[in-house]
Amino acid sequence: MNQDARTLTLAEIAERLGARLEGDGGRRVSGLATLREAEPDQVAFLANRAYLKDLPGTRAAAVLLAPGHAGTCPVARLEMDNPYLGYAELSRLFDPLAGRTPAGIHPTAVVADDVRLGAEVAIGPQAVIESGVELGDEVVIGPGCVVGADSRIGPGSRLHANVTVCHGVVIGARAILHSGCVIGGDGFGFAHDGARWHKIAQLGGVVLGDDVEVGSCSSIDRGALGDTLIGDDVKIDSQVQIAHNVQIGDHSALAGCVGIAGSTRVGRHCMLGGGVGLSGHLTIADGVQVTGMSLVTNSILEPGIYSSGTGAMDNAQWRRNAVRFKQLDDIARRLARLEKAGRSG
Amino acid sequence: MNQDARTLTLAEIAERLGARLEGDGGRRVSGLATLREAEPDQVAFLANRAYLKDLPGTRAAAVLLAPGHAGTCPVARLEMDNPYLGYAELSRLFDPLAGRTPAGIHPTAVVADDVRLGAEVAIGPQAVIESGVELGDEVVIGPGCVVGADSRIGPGSRLHANVTVCHGVVIGARAILHSGCVIGGDGFGFAHDGARWHKIAQLGGVVLGDDVEVGSCSSIDRGALGDTLIGDDVKIDSQVQIAHNVQIGDHSALAGCVGIAGSTRVGRHCMLGGGVGLSGHLTIADGVQVTGMSLVTNSILEPGIYSSGTGAMDNAQWRRNAVRFKQLDDIARRLARLEKAGRSG
Amino acid sequence: MNQDARTLTLAEIAERLGARLEGDGGRRVSGLATLREAEPDQVAFLANRAYLKDLPGTRAAAVLLAPGHAGTCPVARLEMDNPYLGYAELSRLFDPLAGRTPAGIHPTAVVADDVRLGAEVAIGPQAVIESGVELGDEVVIGPGCVVGADSRIGPGSRLHANVTVCHGVVIGARAILHSGCVIGGDGFGFAHDGARWHKIAQLGGVVLGDDVEVGSCSSIDRGALGDTLIGDDVKIDSQVQIAHNVQIGDHSALAGCVGIAGSTRVGRHCMLGGGVGLSGHLTIADGVQVTGMSLVTNSILEPGIYSSGTGAMDNAQWRRNAVRFKQLDDIARRLARLEKAGRSG
Repeated sequence: MNQDARTLTLAEIAERLGARLEGDGGRRVSGLATLREAEPDQVAFLANRAYLKDLPGTRAAAVLLAPGHAGTCPVARLEMDNPYLGYAELSRLFDPLAGRTPAGIHPTAVVADDVRLGAEVAIGPQAVIESGVELGDEVVIGPGCVVGADSRIGPGSRLHANVTVCHGVVIGARAILHSGCVIGGDGFGFAHDGARWHKIAQLGGVVLGDDVEVGSCSSIDRGALGDTLIGDDVKIDSQVQIAHNVQIGDHSALAGCVGIAGSTRVGRHCMLGGGVGLSGHLTIADGVQVTGMSLVTNSILEPGIYSSGTGAMDNAQWRRNAVRFKQLDDIARRLARLEKAGRSG
Repeated sequence: MNQDARTLTLAEIAERLGARLEGDGGRRVSGLATLREAEPDQVAFLANRAYLKDLPGTRAAAVLLAPGHAGTCPVARLEMDNPYLGYAELSRLFDPLAGRTPAGIHPTAVVADDVRLGAEVAIGPQAVIESGVELGDEVVIGPGCVVGADSRIGPGSRLHANVTVCHGVVIGARAILHSGCVIGGDGFGFAHDGARWHKIAQLGGVVLGDDVEVGSCSSIDRGALGDTLIGDDVKIDSQVQIAHNVQIGDHSALAGCVGIAGSTRVGRHCMLGGGVGLSGHLTIADGVQVTGMSLVTNSILEPGIYSSGTGAMDNAQWRRNAVRFKQLDDIARRLARLEKAGRSG
Repeated sequence: MNQDARTLTLAEIAERLGARLEGDGGRRVSGLATLREAEPDQVAFLANRAYLKDLPGTRAAAVLLAPGHAGTCPVARLEMDNPYLGYAELSRLFDPLAGRTPAGIHPTAVVADDVRLGAEVAIGPQAVIESGVELGDEVVIGPGCVVGADSRIGPGSRLHANVTVCHGVVIGARAILHSGCVIGGDGFGFAHDGARWHKIAQLGGVVLGDDVEVGSCSSIDRGALGDTLIGDDVKIDSQVQIAHNVQIGDHSALAGCVGIAGSTRVGRHCMLGGGVGLSGHLTIADGVQVTGMSLVTNSILEPGIYSSGTGAMDNAQWRRNAVRFKQLDDIARRLARLEKAGRSG
């Protein structure tokens, strides 16, 4: 990727990041890279001790780092207490996408007559904006997106290409929705008459707070009666499934392939690892972390780290142990008998 | 969501549902809600004893319930034996989407000359209908959908926005396909020559029976030679993967994130929980239920409930136990030795 | 599916496959089927001993098989050492899609002025090709696809309908991208300030080698700084998630629903079963196979087959054993105590 769309001086960067600069403030840089790969016109960063070994040999113009790591830095320094946060901000300064989309409606977009548009809205080619939709200031709608009837999208939000927002969805400010994600598809609701299924129309909607990000090809289903609720600053990775009437508290993060069944409530500041599954109708407390591919079938009422499953091993070894898993209750009973025999013997 | 698109009298509802009304048949209602949240112009329902506690305080205009629960109902009653089924039907009566899409072909849709269209078909903006396609009466094709060459879609079916139906797919009547799903992508078939992969063209198709629903971003792959077959009244949630030549029997339901490998046959009236994985070339009997995130690697020939995996626990506790799982065969052998020593001792 | 678009003589097939023909070389056939289902105008194949029982009764015009299986073949034979490879090639000869798409740009496609197009490129209806894109000879872009700015797609590649290739992605020759897949969505990167998340712009890209296939609704995320790298001849099934900066070695195959977390490097000739999860920052050696739905949290440095999890069983039995899993460390300690008592007793 060409990151060279813009250049900044080290002094400008220091000011934007609130970092203390040791070095030539007038030097211009045009990008960001790792310590090992940075060219002399790029800034590098050190946010993890594991990479301290790469510091002495870096060719970067400057390194963003914590004051405690300044010792072996051979080049200019941008010092701040949380250099990873500095890296995040710097990455956005060099983002070639930022500001790339000019406002305006592409002539091939289909925009209903009664759509309300804020200032500086951009609507890409082949997009469809249905009746009753409201788009806030500086919203960017990518090519091929569909925004369903009566939905509202808050200011500064960006839908990448081929996103689907169904009818009656509410999205807050500064959302980022990646390609292929679907917000507001029907929840999975059916009544059984003893022989066949009868569809339950999903009459609720989806409400996303501010600063929500949703990864590519993820699904957030609409509620059956009330709404599916995603809090502020919730970050959702790719290939995630969020069922109807789920609630996710503010600042929680869900890694790829997570699946959450209906009506489960996840607290604030939770982190779900990749592939985690939560059963329906659970309550997960604030501050809970669940490690990758764990299955949670009961509510978790205390913050902490939770896990299930078994680690990978050689298949032959695994086969021997997995067979024994089926005997585990029997093993436990036999052990208890032996213990009892030993005590009485 | 605005559900107030239509109003009905309680007498009209009782007639539509076959319910026995106790109360003012002329009272008009405009929506459906839970016992706790219902406003005085809405109907509530009681389908689960867990919510019986909410019945005395409800402000609903009427409650849909079983005759046995009539005792503490403070408002009008719509009595029927299976109130959940009544709720399902009532939800559809109040569905704002029902009947919303007027027939006609949007001028931006691209429809091949030889497409055969039934009566009252609706084709949304930016949709593409390729050569040889046949759409039954009252089919609705949402914005941005692509229907590939020679596919047939039965009467009353609805494709929500951005659905892809590949070439040569057959879909029955009254299907509901949610946004982002893909019906008929290639199955995953390759021959290996010892060094590299050679693609096996997927010459089969996909056949969906009547009354099938497929959730957002789900994939149903086409067969290698014969067809992938989905029976009548099969309900498939979001983020599901169905590989080539799988067969799913009538009335089965697959929750979110299920994955089924190639050529496996699932019986009728089966229920697969969220994230369940079935290996390839298995036979699953009628009436089998598999609980969430279980892995099934052998055929299941008897109806019943099946599970695998371990429940979530505190991570520190889990680490101690998961290490022991790798020793399980050894533990079992040592236990057997102790038992033998005890008997001979 | 109508496979009868073309016919070939057995002699032509023998020549294309390098097979030895025993039978009438002038006989014309128009398709391919299994031994049991083949009609007299179709070729069947025997690539797996399990189907040897179907050989004597086949009605096929000819059977593709290994010389050692010729004995009981009642019809003409196409003999070759690896008949499965022959089947693969034959399937492509009968593929009705091959050569179906005429070159040219559909009038509804939106193609930026500066796009560089090779010879015989086909761009379908409603597609969007953004500025700076380069499409090689004979590239096919399906209906509704979006190719983002500055991306390059190598000769002979095909994007099926509704594929999204984001900006700055590089795709090699002969790629096949299935509907709904997204190449180059943002990786999942955020810095935490103690209270909330700060987005890390994903400045890297995605590079796909030659002969890569990606299944429907799969996601390959762009790198944070460097690129996400997919080697030559890598085959990726549907519903797969590949996170930022992952590297996949040449000739590896990933089955459906696999998820790979950030910066993990998978070797060459690896095979990951359906639903496998790999944690981030791992190294997986060449030639590793992981069985379905296994979780890998540590690097694997030796080729071999690896597994985790437990097999499915009757739910009542499972409940008893799963409870014991939580006691497993305790069981192991108690067993050790008994052994010690036995030795000292």
